[in-house]
Amino acid sequence: MKYGIVAFPSKKVQDFANSYRKRYDPHYSLITPHMTIKGVFEADEKEIKTVAEQVAQVVKNHKPFTLKTSKVSSFAPVTNAIYFKVEPTNELLALHQDLNAIEFSDEANYTFVPHITIAQKMNSSEHDDIYPQLKMIGAEFEEEIDRLHLLYQLEDGSWTVYETFRLSGAE
Amino acid sequence: MKYGIVAFPSKKVQDFANSYRKRYDPHYSLITPHMTIKGVFEADEKEIKTVAEQVAQVVKNHKPFTLKTSKVSSFAPVTNAIYFKVEPTNELLALHQDLNAIEFSDEANYTFVPHITIAQKMNSSEHDDIYPQLKMIGAEFEEEIDRLHLLYQLEDGSWTVYETFRLSGAE
Repeated sequence: MKYGIVAFPSKKVQDFANSYRKRYDPHYSLITPHMTIKGVFEADEKEIKTVAEQVAQVVKNHKPFTLKTSKVSSFAPVTNAIYFKVEPTNELLALHQDLNAIEFSDEANYTFVPHITIAQKMNSSEHDDIYPQLKMIGAEFEEEIDRLHLLYQLEDGSWTVYETFRLSGAE
Repeated sequence: MKYGIVAFPSKKVQDFANSYRKRYDPHYSLITPHMTIKGVFEADEKEIKTVAEQVAQVVKNHKPFTLKTSKVSSFAPVTNAIYFKVEPTNELLALHQDLNAIEFSDEANYTFVPHITIAQKMNSSEHDDIYPQLKMIGAEFEEEIDRLHLLYQLEDGSWTVYETFRLSGAE
């Protein structure tokens, strides 16, 4: 089964992201707006219990962090995905690192660029058309994230939450 | 903001339910297959913290329960919704009662009929057409549910998980 770990931003940010995703993101109906912290990995139902226990240990060492977005950016030309760029604070990078140190990681060498996707799977002309518009509108948010969610994927591609974890590390 | 408390069945049951929901349930893309345990209620962001604390207390007094579905049933003529009927065990009814005793309940007098919806918002002729087919195929599942999920609704109608709660009551 496929799993991943994400943070969901506040309803306000999710609603704003969805106003774009509804039109520009074919994954719109599969998952609500999110920032991936540990990318998709495969595990069976027994393995995931071990992973969940390890995640529970990791979050004990991390306190709530600030999710700050400052602008709209794009992964083009690597892939035509547009996103709210999330500031890669030391807290967030450390959290990512600790979660990826848990077994069943996706490609460990992939650079972590924290983001909330708002548009993807477009062809280049679509991308080049809407990117300047979205960039101009921008995305300035700042809020506290105090929990992570371990999700799994159903056969139709949609994601269900398996468990939430509070970032309960001491100040 | 709108909140609710549900249990998600296993991936197997969700995949099976989705094979129908994809065609017959307009809420298909808003939430994955679930059994509602505390129906929709309104709360603001401060109130929900209190509710979450109370839910955390309730789950301490309840152990994991068996979710057993035996057949496909329908709420018609009250409403044209078809569902997997979930056996209303004493454990489940007690859990429902304790969760509904928390403030911000929906109509307390509404009878609790545990179910997993697979089709809804049909007109009567559609309903009468597909109901016998689904009924014949049936839905026999039995599994353990060890956690609940507190969800909130976004402006577009989709649901995000706020927090999961383990049913950690002693045997």
